[in-house]
Amino acid sequence: MEARLLYPQVFVSDQVQRKLLNSVDDCVDEALCGIVRSHGALALLRGHRVVLRSDLGSLKGKVALLSGGGSGHEPAHAGYIGVGMLSGAVAGGVFASPPPASILAAILSLWQGGAAGVLLVVKNYTGDRLNFGLAAEQARSQGVPVDMVIVADDCAFNQPSKAGRRGLCGTVFVHKLAGAMAEEGLPLETIVSRVNEAAKDIGTLGVSLSPCSVPGCLPSFQLPPGEMELGLGIHGEPGIKRSKVAPADKVVKTMIDHMSDPSSLSHLAIKSGDPVVLCVNNLGALSCLEMAVVTKAAISCLEDRAIIVTRVMSGSFMTSLEMAGMSLSIMKADQEILRLFDSKTTAPAWPNLSCEPVSGRKWTVEPPQLIAPHEITHRPGPLSDVMQKALQAVCEALLQLQEELNMLDRAAGDGDCGNTHACAAKATQEWLQGRKLPGCPGQLMTALASLVQEKMGGSSGALYSIFLTAAALPLLGQDDIAAWATAVHAGTEAMKRYGGAEPGDRTMLDALCPAVEELQRLSSSPPTGAMAILQAAVERAQAGADSTRSLSAKAGRASYIASGHLTQPDPGAVAVAAILKAVFEALGGGCS
Amino acid sequence: MEARLLYPQVFVSDQVQRKLLNSVDDCVDEALCGIVRSHGALALLRGHRVVLRSDLGSLKGKVALLSGGGSGHEPAHAGYIGVGMLSGAVAGGVFASPPPASILAAILSLWQGGAAGVLLVVKNYTGDRLNFGLAAEQARSQGVPVDMVIVADDCAFNQPSKAGRRGLCGTVFVHKLAGAMAEEGLPLETIVSRVNEAAKDIGTLGVSLSPCSVPGCLPSFQLPPGEMELGLGIHGEPGIKRSKVAPADKVVKTMIDHMSDPSSLSHLAIKSGDPVVLCVNNLGALSCLEMAVVTKAAISCLEDRAIIVTRVMSGSFMTSLEMAGMSLSIMKADQEILRLFDSKTTAPAWPNLSCEPVSGRKWTVEPPQLIAPHEITHRPGPLSDVMQKALQAVCEALLQLQEELNMLDRAAGDGDCGNTHACAAKATQEWLQGRKLPGCPGQLMTALASLVQEKMGGSSGALYSIFLTAAALPLLGQDDIAAWATAVHAGTEAMKRYGGAEPGDRTMLDALCPAVEELQRLSSSPPTGAMAILQAAVERAQAGADSTRSLSAKAGRASYIASGHLTQPDPGAVAVAAILKAVFEALGGGCS
Repeated sequence: MEARLLYPQVFVSDQVQRKLLNSVDDCVDEALCGIVRSHGALALLRGHRVVLRSDLGSLKGKVALLSGGGSGHEPAHAGYIGVGMLSGAVAGGVFASPPPASILAAILSLWQGGAAGVLLVVKNYTGDRLNFGLAAEQARSQGVPVDMVIVADDCAFNQPSKAGRRGLCGTVFVHKLAGAMAEEGLPLETIVSRVNEAAKDIGTLGVSLSPCSVPGCLPSFQLPPGEMELGLGIHGEPGIKRSKVAPADKVVKTMIDHMSDPSSLSHLAIKSGDPVVLCVNNLGALSCLEMAVVTKAAISCLEDRAIIVTRVMSGSFMTSLEMAGMSLSIMKADQEILRLFDSKTTAPAWPNLSCEPVSGRKWTVEPPQLIAPHEITHRPGPLSDVMQKALQAVCEALLQLQEELNMLDRAAGDGDCGNTHACAAKATQEWLQGRKLPGCPGQLMTALASLVQEKMGGSSGALYSIFLTAAALPLLGQDDIAAWATAVHAGTEAMKRYGGAEPGDRTMLDALCPAVEELQRLSSSPPTGAMAILQAAVERAQAGADSTRSLSAKAGRASYIASGHLTQPDPGAVAVAAILKAVFEALGGGCS
Repeated sequence: MEARLLYPQVFVSDQVQRKLLNSVDDCVDEALCGIVRSHGALALLRGHRVVLRSDLGSLKGKVALLSGGGSGHEPAHAGYIGVGMLSGAVAGGVFASPPPASILAAILSLWQGGAAGVLLVVKNYTGDRLNFGLAAEQARSQGVPVDMVIVADDCAFNQPSKAGRRGLCGTVFVHKLAGAMAEEGLPLETIVSRVNEAAKDIGTLGVSLSPCSVPGCLPSFQLPPGEMELGLGIHGEPGIKRSKVAPADKVVKTMIDHMSDPSSLSHLAIKSGDPVVLCVNNLGALSCLEMAVVTKAAISCLEDRAIIVTRVMSGSFMTSLEMAGMSLSIMKADQEILRLFDSKTTAPAWPNLSCEPVSGRKWTVEPPQLIAPHEITHRPGPLSDVMQKALQAVCEALLQLQEELNMLDRAAGDGDCGNTHACAAKATQEWLQGRKLPGCPGQLMTALASLVQEKMGGSSGALYSIFLTAAALPLLGQDDIAAWATAVHAGTEAMKRYGGAEPGDRTMLDALCPAVEELQRLSSSPPTGAMAILQAAVERAQAGADSTRSLSAKAGRASYIASGHLTQPDPGAVAVAAILKAVFEALGGGCS
């Protein structure tokens, strides 16, 4: 079948929004196919745009629920088919009412599946009322017990026209309540009367920051950027007010005030103390971040009026194609309504909700009490003085190198490598003031890790902190030179693991790894050989740092620079070599 | 706290997209609050952007799962917290890695809750690796058994950089598998090794038709309308190719070909016969209609390659704010993976999936065999001839009125009322050709309803068809004049019920209702009085039609016209009066 292509080269118009579809003519059928194929419990009625439960037999003796309407509102209505919700859904073209013949075919399929009767849930639009009505009358004339519930939950108009309030996202509440009752085996008349009663207590209002466009057509209306429209229908029919986009809290308050304004003929009568279910519905293209902010605003706004929010559903439930907007639906919910709302359903588009009440619940927990390790005072020991001396030397060395490191970094990064290291050095000097270092090197490393994390920042801060934290572990309770070998190895491995770089990538590892390799010899060396090993390590670090002149960057910010532009050594590697050298000299080693 | 307002009057820029937020600074915290408050099983760790299960106690003895990363990807990751998935999630700013202190606080909270260990699930971005890595090392140094799984599922780059493949929506699969294993009580090492194994068999590729913009910032990149970019990251990082937006089938095929291309170092090795799970992820602003079309395309494309699609999830799982795009994630799934995937979870963002296999399932059902009532031949009877005569008269009358009805309609509607009625009349004449009418008036009405529905179209077709269908019922098996009274009353009531109009609304009801009121007298009248009653009914219909001159329209298309512009009668009412008159005359009545 050659379908009309969506983007024929001849009349591509910049105003017809590009969509990810195959063709205007086939999009509804393809979408239904996509929905049905994704969900094992759904089946397509051949030759019709009708989706049914694939286990029609399990309807035996129960009332079947059928809904539907124009397409473009997905997941409505096929997404609500499942145990405890709809038994079937009939789709029309995009924003167009489905033909009575398909509605009748759906009703008869449900009836032949053994249903005790069929309830049609119809949104209040003239086309849907007529087409579902006609099919209902035809089914009735064939002996099928059929009834219809018309949902008219729109709170937009103070004076609704003769056609009445429009049917909007509140319909999803009706699907849920009626579906739960049908699943419980209630007779058709009981369901109809209870649902009609419950539907009076549902109100919906929408707002949008953008129009939507039917595939192949121009946008349904024009809305200048930065403006929003309140109260529009789910096909982009006109709303009640246009204004500048306001902050979310204000938009939500305006909406809830309007929805509950007693001077409006289409208001929802809610008052302080009323328990309600809230549905925050994405009309299509609002980001999930915005949706969550709006949800918070809506809960707060209701609670400010002492309304009890019992449940909240937030997501895409009845969309208007790619409209960047949302609607709020509120349903007054006594215990019985809540019981039906909470009952299980397998419908694909029904969210995983909790049965905890929203208002009144404690929703924060206290964090563990943590003291930053560098603020804890530990017992000093024989090593305290020598470690203090080494640390002072490292700080001085880094401060002296500040400008050189910045210069090296300017060639490859953002030129702040010297500043970052100087920042850590100054913070350490300040921390050392009047402090006696812990005697345990593991405790010192842990304290330094915490200090560096807090004061140095950036990737370097995280990497040094990772090194120090991992190196601390083997040095807690042990301080022989073998433990130092294990420690620097553990620190380096952690740095490699989390940083994702290897020697040869032009990073600090090019100085660190050769030195650590050398330092491994400490584990099998007598204490008297330690300074010689440390000296060798310093030399290998220096050589490693020098070698980065000829390396192209594969990690870190410098990896974005073509290697030909890099002729200086990597500043991170230079810093590491300098730190080792400072430690060596502080321990009494001679210059290499 | 005075937060920076999102839209300060001074530097509103048309390029900074308006969003439904309160402030740039608070949006992440407000969103987390919205998510937590909506779901009874979630709690916020005070002072941190950390969401935890509110029932931490139930982790006792099980491995806890912690994930997280930058915000703007909602519902990731807080939406995946629940029994059988994550135990907690740490959020950074929009598109920014979370601070190690909050990650550590989350780990320690889980540990103090009684977890047997903590597994960190981290998307492969340097910032997340470092910050989660640092927190992991710190927790380890406090004696907490912690391990980390890094997800790197991006299939975009043939030659991934040193940083490796990016972590994308496939992370959600990892949450699910690891969560199911943790719930089963498996030890940390087992979960890590199995998840690392499974993660190798996950691949993801994205495409977008629009950029997104961090709140308060310009869009992350520029994409001319009508173009799309393949292979971008979830922060709008560059992809691999730009092109014109192609049909959905072609886009999907290009993506799956690229994802599985063995010459790419980041490809997913899938071959004919492999069972897979498919995730079609809305990056933010693609309409649900497009999503369903894409889902169909992806299933078909995989099946064309004889790959067995076992499960499909389609929706918003890891978004990039309001990016109009989608990503495909594919996971090879043996029986064990599938068992874990299918296991129950209470996580709010996990969809209601069925455990039926997708490929190989029969997903269509046959419709009921229906013969259109007007194509069924019924037994003629004594009334056949007189009904035929009346029907012929009605057709002739409507054809004579065609131009007048069009003219009346031009003042208030779209001017085709005469054409619509003529169309029904001609179809009826054709249908009458050489046909002997059924003797049962109910059968005739049912046939006419079906004919009118099929040939007349529009709201008028539906309304006449509803009238005839509802009126048919009392006339099946009965044809006394009392039954006719019941029939016209039932038809009128159905028309009112589904059409939503009342007498006085300037519709056909203004002629029909007074006539039907008169015809009610048939039920208590002797047969000899019938013609007098019919005559009175014709007169009342005529008067009713005339009265619409002074009515303003409240229903139908004419309701959009200001009443002052309407001085002619309603064409629908005129048509009804003419039909009744034609019947009356055909039955031998004199002109009024």
